[in-house]
Amino acid sequence: MTRTVLESKTKTVVIGFDEPFCVIGERINPTGRKKLAAELELGDFTTVEKDALEQVACGATVLDINSGAVFSNKMAEDPRYADNNFVEPPLMRDLILRVQAITDVPLCIDSSVPAALEAGLAACEGRPLLNSVTGEEERLERVLPLVKKYNVPVVAISNDDTGISEDPDVRFAVAKKIVERAADFGIPAHDIVVDPLVMPVGAMASAGRQVFTLVQRLRTELGVNTTCGASNISFGLPNRHGVNAAFLPMAIGAGMTSAIMNPVRNQEMEAIRAANLLMNHDDNAMDWIKLSKVLEAMKEGASFAEAAAAAAASSGRGGRRRAR
Amino acid sequence: MTRTVLESKTKTVVIGFDEPFCVIGERINPTGRKKLAAELELGDFTTVEKDALEQVACGATVLDINSGAVFSNKMAEDPRYADNNFVEPPLMRDLILRVQAITDVPLCIDSSVPAALEAGLAACEGRPLLNSVTGEEERLERVLPLVKKYNVPVVAISNDDTGISEDPDVRFAVAKKIVERAADFGIPAHDIVVDPLVMPVGAMASAGRQVFTLVQRLRTELGVNTTCGASNISFGLPNRHGVNAAFLPMAIGAGMTSAIMNPVRNQEMEAIRAANLLMNHDDNAMDWIKLSKVLEAMKEGASFAEAAAAAAASSGRGGRRRAR
Repeated sequence: MTRTVLESKTKTVVIGFDEPFCVIGERINPTGRKKLAAELELGDFTTVEKDALEQVACGATVLDINSGAVFSNKMAEDPRYADNNFVEPPLMRDLILRVQAITDVPLCIDSSVPAALEAGLAACEGRPLLNSVTGEEERLERVLPLVKKYNVPVVAISNDDTGISEDPDVRFAVAKKIVERAADFGIPAHDIVVDPLVMPVGAMASAGRQVFTLVQRLRTELGVNTTCGASNISFGLPNRHGVNAAFLPMAIGAGMTSAIMNPVRNQEMEAIRAANLLMNHDDNAMDWIKLSKVLEAMKEGASFAEAAAAAAASSGRGGRRRAR
Repeated sequence: MTRTVLESKTKTVVIGFDEPFCVIGERINPTGRKKLAAELELGDFTTVEKDALEQVACGATVLDINSGAVFSNKMAEDPRYADNNFVEPPLMRDLILRVQAITDVPLCIDSSVPAALEAGLAACEGRPLLNSVTGEEERLERVLPLVKKYNVPVVAISNDDTGISEDPDVRFAVAKKIVERAADFGIPAHDIVVDPLVMPVGAMASAGRQVFTLVQRLRTELGVNTTCGASNISFGLPNRHGVNAAFLPMAIGAGMTSAIMNPVRNQEMEAIRAANLLMNHDDNAMDWIKLSKVLEAMKEGASFAEAAAAAAASSGRGGRRRAR
């Protein structure tokens, strides 16, 4: 059985075929969040810390940390800030130290800048997930040695130097190439979590079926765990949460084992908890019953994050790290 | 491609691997609905007619008509009413005539009493679905000749004289036996819609996975369409709609092509519409966009049935039969 083991200093999370679906919280990401980027530029980590705690309370068992910020004001003063290689490594370090100080879940170090990945690996306790390598030659050569050196699992995105193919067979072939190249470095398949790339179903009608088929193939033919940016599927459509909330159970049924997503959304999290139950990955329906109480509390007017945090606090299992 | 063709006098509905999921409305069923049974005993079809129109407006494309009523008061006066063979045949006829008069969807004739099935077949226009045959010898011998005589498709429930097996392999074998026996009568596999029997996941933790596996086998090995009583899956659990709303997309992803269910539930219908979209069975996301408008209208306080009926009326496609 394929098991991808992630660790924080105190907690182990396994992504696997016989495990509950792994929810990787995507909120800590300044790309496209101007307010967050502006805060980070001022050295203000308030939103980051709030997002970390909220996501864990809502059910994320791993937190993605993306350092892709653009510091517009600093850039105006100092041209070095126009370079992500300058901005991201220290920012990644700071983000990880802040989040690690207040939560106990494993992290996912997410950057397109290899130096930021390395800064993250140096700062991170435990066994984080590295996000990501692709099939692009330069990136393979730069990232796989880091994966080997730090002995961590890695997200493998199935695009290469020719871009993102609309042909799922090509995307499968790219994933296969990455797994093979990783093997050359001595990295086992169970440490590769493939992202088969989810296209918007509004733009490509076959996008859903493509993913379901790809996930099955990746699982049976390559024996790898899988992940995706789940909300891409609904891009451009009305009532996106409804599309996401059907996509996730269908992907889980097809064998998908994790997603990088916003856990502060009750509709999606309800769908995932129900899918875990239906896959026989929820002993005695304990997690389902807990979630049902949170949803019940929302009827009194609480937001999902508030109700989830209250439930976590009352069960003594909040995001805040216990004394060590 | 397996296609099960149902017809009303004016409308054709195809259950098939390449069709949107077929929603068979289950509401017209006096079993366990005491108020409805009491109305029917008085010859009052108000609720039946309301349920028929509501279910069609909400998205049922087939209506199940179950005649399983117990007429307690009449029984006290006349002992013949204790016999379902006496009660159901004329009731089935009446129900079908009433529903047929105000809707244009194909019907599903549902009774455990063969004489009621036959009365329904005689009264029904078009090509209804017969519900049901089982693997029980007596029932096979009684129902399959009706299926042949009237040239209609039939629901085949995978229990037999030994009862309902908890072993999915046994349930598959029962389904196979029914398909083979039907073939002896000259009934083709595409006119058999197998119900693999859905157990409550709260009582049997493997119930979800069993169904997904069975549906795949029934489809690939027997080439048959499938159906189920979808809400059974959530029996005994809190927040049942949430479980149903994940189960349906997962079952659809596994290849299930229809369900007998309550369509007057927005959460389940939203899940089915999203699953159709993700299976590439919703051209240009037209049905998804329509449903999204109905859900939007619910935010103003309308019930799902009200909002769906208003949308159907404004698009000129209500449940009411057009002039012929």
